[in-house]
Amino acid sequence: MSEEIFVAAPAGTAVGDNAIRDIRITPVAFADPPLLNTVGVHEPFALRAIVQMRTGGGAVGLGETYGDAAHLARLALAAEAVLGGDVFAANDMRTRVARALAQRSVTGGHGMSGMVTGTSTADRVLSPFDVAALDIRGKILGVPVSELLGGRVRGRVPFSGYLFYKWEGHPSAGADRWGPALNPEGIVEQARSFINGYGFGALKLKGGVFAPDEEAAAMLALREAFPEVPLRIDPNGAWSVDTSVRIADRLKDVLEYLEDPTVGLEAMAEVRRRTSLPLATNMWVVAFEHIAEAVRLGSIDIVLSDHHFWGGLERSKLLAGISEAMGWGLSMHSNSHLGISLAAMTHLAAATPVLDYACDTHWPWKREDEDVVAPGTFAFDGGALAVPNDPGLGVELDTEGLERLHRQYIDCGIRERDDTGYMKRFDPSFENTAPRW
Amino acid sequence: MSEEIFVAAPAGTAVGDNAIRDIRITPVAFADPPLLNTVGVHEPFALRAIVQMRTGGGAVGLGETYGDAAHLARLALAAEAVLGGDVFAANDMRTRVARALAQRSVTGGHGMSGMVTGTSTADRVLSPFDVAALDIRGKILGVPVSELLGGRVRGRVPFSGYLFYKWEGHPSAGADRWGPALNPEGIVEQARSFINGYGFGALKLKGGVFAPDEEAAAMLALREAFPEVPLRIDPNGAWSVDTSVRIADRLKDVLEYLEDPTVGLEAMAEVRRRTSLPLATNMWVVAFEHIAEAVRLGSIDIVLSDHHFWGGLERSKLLAGISEAMGWGLSMHSNSHLGISLAAMTHLAAATPVLDYACDTHWPWKREDEDVVAPGTFAFDGGALAVPNDPGLGVELDTEGLERLHRQYIDCGIRERDDTGYMKRFDPSFENTAPRW
Repeated sequence: MSEEIFVAAPAGTAVGDNAIRDIRITPVAFADPPLLNTVGVHEPFALRAIVQMRTGGGAVGLGETYGDAAHLARLALAAEAVLGGDVFAANDMRTRVARALAQRSVTGGHGMSGMVTGTSTADRVLSPFDVAALDIRGKILGVPVSELLGGRVRGRVPFSGYLFYKWEGHPSAGADRWGPALNPEGIVEQARSFINGYGFGALKLKGGVFAPDEEAAAMLALREAFPEVPLRIDPNGAWSVDTSVRIADRLKDVLEYLEDPTVGLEAMAEVRRRTSLPLATNMWVVAFEHIAEAVRLGSIDIVLSDHHFWGGLERSKLLAGISEAMGWGLSMHSNSHLGISLAAMTHLAAATPVLDYACDTHWPWKREDEDVVAPGTFAFDGGALAVPNDPGLGVELDTEGLERLHRQYIDCGIRERDDTGYMKRFDPSFENTAPRW
Repeated sequence: MSEEIFVAAPAGTAVGDNAIRDIRITPVAFADPPLLNTVGVHEPFALRAIVQMRTGGGAVGLGETYGDAAHLARLALAAEAVLGGDVFAANDMRTRVARALAQRSVTGGHGMSGMVTGTSTADRVLSPFDVAALDIRGKILGVPVSELLGGRVRGRVPFSGYLFYKWEGHPSAGADRWGPALNPEGIVEQARSFINGYGFGALKLKGGVFAPDEEAAAMLALREAFPEVPLRIDPNGAWSVDTSVRIADRLKDVLEYLEDPTVGLEAMAEVRRRTSLPLATNMWVVAFEHIAEAVRLGSIDIVLSDHHFWGGLERSKLLAGISEAMGWGLSMHSNSHLGISLAAMTHLAAATPVLDYACDTHWPWKREDEDVVAPGTFAFDGGALAVPNDPGLGVELDTEGLERLHRQYIDCGIRERDDTGYMKRFDPSFENTAPRW
């Protein structure tokens, strides 16, 4: 049994060497710990979709994206539409995807559980095909993807240690290997284990879970425990303007930036006027059409890129150019992801001249034995990854791992990320409201 | 005798196949008619610089840029700096050029005679090297430059007929083949000859020369003579805000856009608030750092790209992406140019998905027997050019033409474009002031 999507040019059709002959989209699920955020808590499994694109010449490229059911339905439409297109023709691919989605409407499935909902559907769907096409181009030309994005400007990409409040384990399963982190001491302990394991030189806390002053206390505890490490907190819009200003003032000598303290570009602009702390966003500037309003209002200092919803690697490069032109700083966002995405993020970061901060990644929260790329592909050193040197993305599909995670997808029954619904099972009074404080 | 600049990797240095081994920069001059604008009149010769870039593997790429003395001095610094760099490494080339220019300061030489002075020096100098590197990349990979820019979205690029008020000829030389155009009838006649010769489907008048109502009368005469042809006028900031609003109202049913009626982003924003006519600029948004202010003020509807000062073709693609994100329209600006630039403009336009208007070009004002590319390379059909299909830019250097135009450069004695100084020779009372009316 399989729930894969497979589309192919009709048998007997002439398909050029660089044209797309077939595409396989495999939904997968991998174990995820009960990480807390302001909309709820991560379910036992995170979903992704793995794209395998094959040309007439036999080259295969890989992409990775969200695995929610509605997103899969849109991926299927887009896959049909890009068949026969040239993997070098980025403009054409974007047009085909946009046209396919304009013809059929599918709602839901943004893969981010209510935290980020304004992303561009067309860019979100385009992304894995863009990445797979770049993987193929690199393989055909014999160069890494970073060289196709203007060339690497750094050989190693620094990532941040992404800390979460968490339960000791999923209620059905008992304590997991990380144990609980529900107060400043737990967060400091988690940070210590992340730094020991990966060497991270920057730390980010997912906030919006406990009262703002408790989370500020966690940041102050991190500062005391790690005096030299840049710190950030992201409460995902859980705070009012006044609360944001008060906490920003409390943390103004502690944070490198404050991410999405409050709701919407206007409120962000008011917070920004009232504090000296740089403000970042990954919630209110998440599509190209949001940029002008953010500039007009003066809402932010830093934008977080994420190739999964900014339309792939080439359009993320466009975002980086825009960010540089606007005088913004640039950082990088992450959702729960597997190795194909990590490779893509690393190539993109390597080829982005102005990238001011260590990139976010959920990587440490993933089991080492669950992935769709060969084990041992990535080795963090000093919190950074070396940019792969092999052609394309430089990662190889682990077909056995893919099969296992696809089986897990079928068995786990989750078809849509729902942090809020999962939280409500344990706390029926929980509501997804913002700002919460 | 030669005034060429030639830089090369030291003899005996190992230079990789795709690395830049040497660069030759040849200043050239070509005959130019006495075209009038608000800062003066075109001199008898226009200057350009031709860049020939050669790799260790022997591939040669072409670029074309301004020929002013100070610009040449900066090109020489940049050429030294990019030697040894990889033609595929765009980020690296940009860094090398910026660094070289930061170390030595050369003033003047922007090549646009006081009309556009705020362009980025680094992007202006980078441009011909970016174009030459793309030409080489295309030749190595066997694809046209447009394919390296995301792939063509149109096979033919429409240009506009660029009308100028002009004297009957240069005072020292008598009437030229176009004759005078000093009133509405002369402009209509010029338009007719341009449309007959090239098939242009859009017309632009360089204004700012005569009283605004006389120029408005010329536009109304064009509308009457050519009821279906989109029209634009560009007075280069010669009008006050009140004059701009008054003329805009007079022409609001006649123009597709009004380009740079007045001086500066704030005054443009005021005009825009007071008229329904779309406003375009090629004077106040001419570098990436101008974009945010234009967005904040709401100064424009349309930005004109020009790869000669926006940093080459890849950064012009960035501008196009920004323009699309801001909801602006996009058009393309031109200075007096030769065939390498025309090829580059055509490839860029072909690969720009959202390009709303016919591109400007000075091409018809150039003698057909003066160029640095082979005669007959370009044939306008219905006002449009077919995108070259040969690898790279798809144009071949005419070494004899280059030699002749270089000799003309040496002989003509012009080393800096100076429309105002040339005008003052005939009208000593002339002053370059803006707004003039």
